[in-house]
Amino acid sequence: MGLTLTEKILSRASGKYVSPGDVVEINVDLAAFHDLTGYHVVEVMEKMGVVKVWDVNRFVLAFDHLAPPPTERAAEIQVGLRKFAKAAGIKFFHDVGDGILHQLLLDHYALPGQVVMAADSHTTTVGAVGAFAQGLGASDIAAIVITGKTWLVVPEPFRIRILGRPGPGVYGKDVALHLLSVFRAEGLNGKSAEFFVEDPGAFPMDYRATVSNMGIELGLDAAMFIPDSETVRHIKERRGVEVKPVTPDPDARYVDGYDVELNRLEPLVATPHSVDNVKSISEVEGLDVDYVFIGSCTNGRLSDIEVAAKILRNGKVRSRCVAIPASREIYIRAMELGYIDTLVRAGCVVTYGTCGPCLGGHFGLVGPGEVAVSTGSRNFKGRMGSPEGKVYLANAAVAAAAALNGKFVDPRKYLT
Amino acid sequence: MGLTLTEKILSRASGKYVSPGDVVEINVDLAAFHDLTGYHVVEVMEKMGVVKVWDVNRFVLAFDHLAPPPTERAAEIQVGLRKFAKAAGIKFFHDVGDGILHQLLLDHYALPGQVVMAADSHTTTVGAVGAFAQGLGASDIAAIVITGKTWLVVPEPFRIRILGRPGPGVYGKDVALHLLSVFRAEGLNGKSAEFFVEDPGAFPMDYRATVSNMGIELGLDAAMFIPDSETVRHIKERRGVEVKPVTPDPDARYVDGYDVELNRLEPLVATPHSVDNVKSISEVEGLDVDYVFIGSCTNGRLSDIEVAAKILRNGKVRSRCVAIPASREIYIRAMELGYIDTLVRAGCVVTYGTCGPCLGGHFGLVGPGEVAVSTGSRNFKGRMGSPEGKVYLANAAVAAAAALNGKFVDPRKYLT
Repeated sequence: MGLTLTEKILSRASGKYVSPGDVVEINVDLAAFHDLTGYHVVEVMEKMGVVKVWDVNRFVLAFDHLAPPPTERAAEIQVGLRKFAKAAGIKFFHDVGDGILHQLLLDHYALPGQVVMAADSHTTTVGAVGAFAQGLGASDIAAIVITGKTWLVVPEPFRIRILGRPGPGVYGKDVALHLLSVFRAEGLNGKSAEFFVEDPGAFPMDYRATVSNMGIELGLDAAMFIPDSETVRHIKERRGVEVKPVTPDPDARYVDGYDVELNRLEPLVATPHSVDNVKSISEVEGLDVDYVFIGSCTNGRLSDIEVAAKILRNGKVRSRCVAIPASREIYIRAMELGYIDTLVRAGCVVTYGTCGPCLGGHFGLVGPGEVAVSTGSRNFKGRMGSPEGKVYLANAAVAAAAALNGKFVDPRKYLT
Repeated sequence: MGLTLTEKILSRASGKYVSPGDVVEINVDLAAFHDLTGYHVVEVMEKMGVVKVWDVNRFVLAFDHLAPPPTERAAEIQVGLRKFAKAAGIKFFHDVGDGILHQLLLDHYALPGQVVMAADSHTTTVGAVGAFAQGLGASDIAAIVITGKTWLVVPEPFRIRILGRPGPGVYGKDVALHLLSVFRAEGLNGKSAEFFVEDPGAFPMDYRATVSNMGIELGLDAAMFIPDSETVRHIKERRGVEVKPVTPDPDARYVDGYDVELNRLEPLVATPHSVDNVKSISEVEGLDVDYVFIGSCTNGRLSDIEVAAKILRNGKVRSRCVAIPASREIYIRAMELGYIDTLVRAGCVVTYGTCGPCLGGHFGLVGPGEVAVSTGSRNFKGRMGSPEGKVYLANAAVAAAAALNGKFVDPRKYLT
């Protein structure tokens, strides 16, 4: 019988053939944590008396959540983690400004077929390159960082086919929100999604990363895109490395499946206060917006900044807008292409490489009574600031059009 | 008998000839507050039952201290102040990202001979254009905003002559630090400095603003540059307005005076934990630096960003560096000139228009045990974060050279 991608990866990682439901010990190919969770991980490691990393070639540390530090406590934690990085001889350490951990993993570290475990729920992001990637708690990550191993219950493989091509104004975010509207938050608990893209070029890496990223909102254990020509292109372009895709066998068996027809989607919005409270843009059009945030590990990539700039070159923002490319590299590319220039002149506040407002961390929290549009991942009460604020999740085009108009407007009018 | 600039301005503002020591009621030409103090001012106004501004053409509100808001409370305060601005019909309202209040006042509002009162100690900054500018507490500013009037004791005019031309690596900051080393912190209490620049072009507006800004550290009631050709040029360039300088009479009488010979100065550093603990760069050379901040109302101007870029184009930063041009306008100009590109590629974290780290507010606090170099205004224990951190104040060239090398280095090696 053929194997799914999930089974292939976990069989290799455990050294034996695995099936859904098996409890297995696996070798981890890549582990990581950031400033916010790193503190707890290192604390656990210190209690265990081991402040070494099992393999410095397989570990990444990035400061992204509270970077640059907005509080004394955050600064103190970062001082401590720098000491850890030095003592443990960490090779891949990204201090403030380099970028959001998941973006760095996606662009520089994660590879198809790998097991990637990091102390952050949105680790699923790097499923975009076909890695089995999962977020774990601090204690689990501490054990992994020390031993290079962990255990898990093999999830049920679930196939999602991405068919056709998206129309204007539709991106990865809309696929994620569509899936959330169908399966609801946590609706795919215990499953591992394997996304098959019919037309690889029509659904590029940036879009895939958004879908994998929000896979955790569906409750998925992993949200992997089956490696294809786009995966190979992305890795070649970013790292100069030629990878051989790992793919499921043609007769692999899935517990269930779902087809997303891209050309039937329209721009979607997750309305307060849940990721699965999804409406089409037409249902919210005209609603006043106070604040727009474009960025995060969900939608802070070049294609997001590009479409935001395309829309914002039409004038000045009418609601305030904070835009944060997910990494310095993305910012530099956006700067070279003139997008940063456009955003700044349109009246946005721009910086880079921090999660910032997405988690209500710093650099633009939502005030009481305010309506915010965020390209981030979550909109539960208080996630981005005041519990009396209202957060709508959307793609970067919807967000930019809202900033430009001070209210929800269908972004397709700027794109067609 | 001739009048000093101080006497001329306060005579006009009070409607009678004044002398030092007189207690007079004066009309205020321009009043302002920001997000952090604005909250208190509006609270006082609400208690007085008046939420109107005496003259919306003479009032400026800017969000700069905690912008974009790093906490729920900051976001809530800004929501409240936006409501105030709307209810009071405020014309000159600068929301997050526009810039630091003092920079906006300097570039767009303050004029020679005006009385400028704002709820922030560094209001002295706009003394650079020859305005009698002072920071006051929330209650005093509330009274001004309601009535347009205040009272004060006429300070003793003190003449400081700025002679000659500065050598490389010497700027306004070094004049300010030199004066602090001579007169000590609060050493010129009760006085109003009138700076006479021998060669106006050799000591441009950016440098003057730094000196006026730090005038408050000397305890000065006002720190005014006698308007000259440079003042006229600056205002013409920024606002397209031709101003007629107000100057002291030739036979004006000063209580005392001091001469700064620019060509005798070298780059200076205020060492922990006091603004008047001044040493020359040679005395600290080689000392390791963890963190560098370039920005603030003291040194976040174009000439600061320019010299930082000139130095940082020599490589990558070895200590982390946060650079924040004081306004969006300065950022745009720096972007056009390629300076932002240089700073970002050198590894700095860049944004604009917030006081941020200078007051330990957000976006880069100092951690315990860290050595920081800041172009800001104050270095008392805990000002920029942990009370166990050490902050050195310096000009942007010294700061950039420290960032590039990870330790103090004489910046003149990059400038000559």
